[in-house]
Amino acid sequence: MKSIAAVHKTYGNPAEVVRPETVEVPAPQKGEAVVKLVRAVVNPSDLGMIGGSYGRLRPLPAIAGREGIGEVAALGPETEGPRAGALVRLPPEPGAWTQYQIAKASDLLEIPCGLDPDAAAMAFINPPTALCVLDGFEKIKPGDWLIQNGAGSALGIFMIQICAARGIKTVNMLRNAGKKRAMLEGYGADIVVDEAEFDAKAIKEATGNCLKLGLNQIGGASVSNMIKAMGDSATVVTIGGMTGEPVRFPTRFLIFNDLRLRGFWWDKWQRTHSRAECEALFSQVFELIAAGVLKAPVDSRYKMADIEAAMRRATENSRLGKVMIEF
Amino acid sequence: MKSIAAVHKTYGNPAEVVRPETVEVPAPQKGEAVVKLVRAVVNPSDLGMIGGSYGRLRPLPAIAGREGIGEVAALGPETEGPRAGALVRLPPEPGAWTQYQIAKASDLLEIPCGLDPDAAAMAFINPPTALCVLDGFEKIKPGDWLIQNGAGSALGIFMIQICAARGIKTVNMLRNAGKKRAMLEGYGADIVVDEAEFDAKAIKEATGNCLKLGLNQIGGASVSNMIKAMGDSATVVTIGGMTGEPVRFPTRFLIFNDLRLRGFWWDKWQRTHSRAECEALFSQVFELIAAGVLKAPVDSRYKMADIEAAMRRATENSRLGKVMIEF
Repeated sequence: MKSIAAVHKTYGNPAEVVRPETVEVPAPQKGEAVVKLVRAVVNPSDLGMIGGSYGRLRPLPAIAGREGIGEVAALGPETEGPRAGALVRLPPEPGAWTQYQIAKASDLLEIPCGLDPDAAAMAFINPPTALCVLDGFEKIKPGDWLIQNGAGSALGIFMIQICAARGIKTVNMLRNAGKKRAMLEGYGADIVVDEAEFDAKAIKEATGNCLKLGLNQIGGASVSNMIKAMGDSATVVTIGGMTGEPVRFPTRFLIFNDLRLRGFWWDKWQRTHSRAECEALFSQVFELIAAGVLKAPVDSRYKMADIEAAMRRATENSRLGKVMIEF
Repeated sequence: MKSIAAVHKTYGNPAEVVRPETVEVPAPQKGEAVVKLVRAVVNPSDLGMIGGSYGRLRPLPAIAGREGIGEVAALGPETEGPRAGALVRLPPEPGAWTQYQIAKASDLLEIPCGLDPDAAAMAFINPPTALCVLDGFEKIKPGDWLIQNGAGSALGIFMIQICAARGIKTVNMLRNAGKKRAMLEGYGADIVVDEAEFDAKAIKEATGNCLKLGLNQIGGASVSNMIKAMGDSATVVTIGGMTGEPVRFPTRFLIFNDLRLRGFWWDKWQRTHSRAECEALFSQVFELIAAGVLKAPVDSRYKMADIEAAMRRATENSRLGKVMIEF
């Protein structure tokens, strides 16, 4: 069977190295299923993996992408698993951005019926990351404050939505806040500040000097500023470094303010937790989608044949929400 | 009663602002004791407090210093407490570097008999800091590795001694390792490396990529290098920033290596723990001194009248061990 896939043969600028290619998909054997792509999502970490800078890289040539939903197109002989037509998570390895792929049927995670397909396609990286950051480092209760940069990203938006639903208040840092401010407030953001106008003292006052948890996706000056706004014994969790600049701050915050700097890597969390633990986390996400808490921010939609345009759009700063790949 | 004290009226260079001065000490009231200085210790954090950069500053004019041992010279009327002549911890507040001071008798911590007086005088800041760092962050068992910079400092030496006694192996970074190398190895150091020749890859190999705990007193390039040598999910605890340079490192260590950056401030630990907890920690230190594990590194001894020379010596880099103030 032929499949159109988003392939890169070198690491580099995604818009330059990712191309649609026809690849051969073998017939499913016993215990295997063919999964047909329905919607795939472009994440910053995908771009980092294509670029050669993010975490564990794939051997080349590689099919890119890790997130989305597909449909079971066929099952191998004598194979149990989700029935043909069932909606499942796109198997992230090796490479989600492909029209058809073979997967172990028993590995497939079925998506509950009736979920918004856009939100379901985005359910496997950003929402579980937000939940792990929120629940895995500091005890955050209703009325507490969280601060994040890169707040206009899908992760940032999901974090706002989850916090608002739980009664946790959020300070949201982003570049060129202008047009995004109203949208983030619509999602439940309490404070939205432009990075360029960030005033740590004002944030300390507005939050009662009680910021206990920070989420850093950006690095550089952004996280240095965030650190100055934190309360004592607060944790800043880094999950990305969009600027590529190092973290940089005076040691006195560590010593005298008991600042705690940690990191979180979703891919590793998945690798090091049991299937039951992963499924329990995804169930939480599905419930949040079903309850209308998580609303999927979609920036634009591209066909697989237009993968180059999708890559170009995904590397632009003006986006609000995810670039989606469809068939 | 007159007392000669090391006083500073401004914050600044210790050798320029600290002067011997005669101050008036009132007669002890009920519940009070007069404590006569026997030996006081000059710590880097004392210099930072005199300089105006370290933690919680004292109102001016201030008597400097926080560590040492004294003798109970007299008790107030109807006062219970250590008998006259007993050896006690110098009350750290307000200011330990003074010939006589008044203290609440019930606050005085008595020193067990027979301890080496130099080691006893150094028992209240560096050894408990080493124990808190070693026991408070990561589970470190015999055979595990610890890395520290500023390893030639008194804290560094105490850490080597405690680790060697527990079977924990140490990597010790310092500047101009040359003549200090043999001494540190004599104290039980496993690896001694000059900062200028530090090779993170070689250290990773030598430690089996298992460095779980780092102690940073220096900041700047030193801690950036240390971070590159750590194993996965390791904690680097910062207790000082001698270079004054910020911590600076790529965010990828936080994300992909699960590096954990923490800080520790002994003064705050003391303030936020009960008297019983503090005494339990000091008892551990006294036992280590009595067992011969902690050997006090003394660089030089100065009379209180020569406090300016003591301050000069304490700010020089070539020291090995503590500057002591005596009477």
